[in-house]
Amino acid sequence: MAVTVVGSVAFDSLETPFGKRERVLGGAATHFALAASFFADVNVVGVVGDDFGEDELAVYAARSVNIDDLERVPGAKSFHWSGRYAEDMTVAHTLNTQLNVFADFDPELSPHARSASTLFLANIQPELQLRVREQCRDARVVGVDSMNFWIESARDALIRTMGEVDVVALNDAEVRMLTGEPNLARAARRLRELGPRVALVKQGPYGACMFTAEGYFSIPAYPLETVVDPTGAGDSFAGGFFGYLDSLDDPNPAENALRAAAVYGSVLASFVVEDFGSERLQRLTEDEIAGRFDEFRQMMVFEEPVAARLRSSTSA
Amino acid sequence: MAVTVVGSVAFDSLETPFGKRERVLGGAATHFALAASFFADVNVVGVVGDDFGEDELAVYAARSVNIDDLERVPGAKSFHWSGRYAEDMTVAHTLNTQLNVFADFDPELSPHARSASTLFLANIQPELQLRVREQCRDARVVGVDSMNFWIESARDALIRTMGEVDVVALNDAEVRMLTGEPNLARAARRLRELGPRVALVKQGPYGACMFTAEGYFSIPAYPLETVVDPTGAGDSFAGGFFGYLDSLDDPNPAENALRAAAVYGSVLASFVVEDFGSERLQRLTEDEIAGRFDEFRQMMVFEEPVAARLRSSTSA
Repeated sequence: MAVTVVGSVAFDSLETPFGKRERVLGGAATHFALAASFFADVNVVGVVGDDFGEDELAVYAARSVNIDDLERVPGAKSFHWSGRYAEDMTVAHTLNTQLNVFADFDPELSPHARSASTLFLANIQPELQLRVREQCRDARVVGVDSMNFWIESARDALIRTMGEVDVVALNDAEVRMLTGEPNLARAARRLRELGPRVALVKQGPYGACMFTAEGYFSIPAYPLETVVDPTGAGDSFAGGFFGYLDSLDDPNPAENALRAAAVYGSVLASFVVEDFGSERLQRLTEDEIAGRFDEFRQMMVFEEPVAARLRSSTSA
Repeated sequence: MAVTVVGSVAFDSLETPFGKRERVLGGAATHFALAASFFADVNVVGVVGDDFGEDELAVYAARSVNIDDLERVPGAKSFHWSGRYAEDMTVAHTLNTQLNVFADFDPELSPHARSASTLFLANIQPELQLRVREQCRDARVVGVDSMNFWIESARDALIRTMGEVDVVALNDAEVRMLTGEPNLARAARRLRELGPRVALVKQGPYGACMFTAEGYFSIPAYPLETVVDPTGAGDSFAGGFFGYLDSLDDPNPAENALRAAAVYGSVLASFVVEDFGSERLQRLTEDEIAGRFDEFRQMMVFEEPVAARLRSSTSA
């Protein structure tokens, strides 16, 4: 049992109302891997330059994340994203994107990374996602993320990728864009008709929701009074979700497993946004995760004290 | 036990992607009253012109809503709102507002309407809300709604009104605007510091959430595949919420009662948007309400199949 994630490993330069940070460790695969590492063995498939140093490697080591498939290209630079969030913290404005080594990323996975029981295809070019999917024949649960850029520029390839995965994790605007359907419930149904049996819809500050054959599940966001930096929330959500699922060692997780996984996803997302980049995940403890999972339970539970005595329209 | 609602009773002319309707029965007090009538006796305090005919009165009669305090002004016209919703159905664009009789609305409540155990001050001028509040000395649970227009133009009066109520029901943009706080959890805390012990935050297609002394409760929206007309969703939510609370006959409803009430609110809101104006509420049945309440329970329940075995950062 293990989770393999393929995606960006990057330096991020971030501006939010709470401050600025230069070159913090980030990238989708980083956030995913740190979150998933609380539940499962994790292999990162990615590429960095030789500006990626011992400090960065130590972050993965501290969480026992396997980076044998993280290629280091001598004389080259790592992917570097610069972004700014305005006061409402919902939309990232990209200031600069330097793909660097990531521009030619086309991984050949090691036998160990290929043998994972769970695979997450983070937001990269859909053709690449498909090639990685084909290398991981043993994966029993496969998830995919994407973004507006690929939906516009590589729609057909993305739809082919969707046909080869079990779970699609997109935000609500992306689900609407991909399906051309403004109503979310219809859009999620269309998405599931492309192949995935689970549509996980991330809704930023509103939480997330999940559409499956068994129905609809709504997951609140944790009501944080301070969101320092939203970067990595979606990937940490995915890390919690797929990490927990992998730990169950069940090739066909049932509805209750998917729901608990989604709550763990929201728990992990709620932590990452408390500090810049992956800094909060780096110091997160298993007790904090367990405690917040219980808080989510409390946030969602209700019981009628007295059953409603509903009145018909003919009563006086 | 009874609920008194004060607010607009109106004709609405509506345009949505699903069609156009002219002069359908609407207004905040109408939607609230029809929703609340499934749980409690309801008195409507409002004003209409003599264009308000037998067909309109029959709608209230069919739900046993008491309209003794609905003043009819001879030779005058009822409030008439015209609005349009674009494809995403989240924002109403006002095309025309004719206040008519509503411009001089300043009700003197009948002894019966004053004696209600529950009072809802729908979205009207805050000074008027306060005067009605003062007339209903026996009300044990009092709620208030408002809108961006009053937050901008009558902020001080609105804050005085907030000091005299138990529950404030606003949408998230209004909560942020009133408190000047972009973070919703902080904004809700500030709102509660103004007096109300319960902050009910309506979030449109994302559902609603509730902040109380005991904590945070998140209520999903029902995942409808077709939303025909969002008009009245917030007032129907309030009608279900306060109607159910009133039926409990508890002067100080506990957290579990407030949570169940919020779910009934979301249930009622999920019906009203299925058709234009109040048409869906007019043909709603108690079995449909009970059935959808159970669906909400299913949408929110989760149980770990196996407790997560969380890994510390020192494990191998």
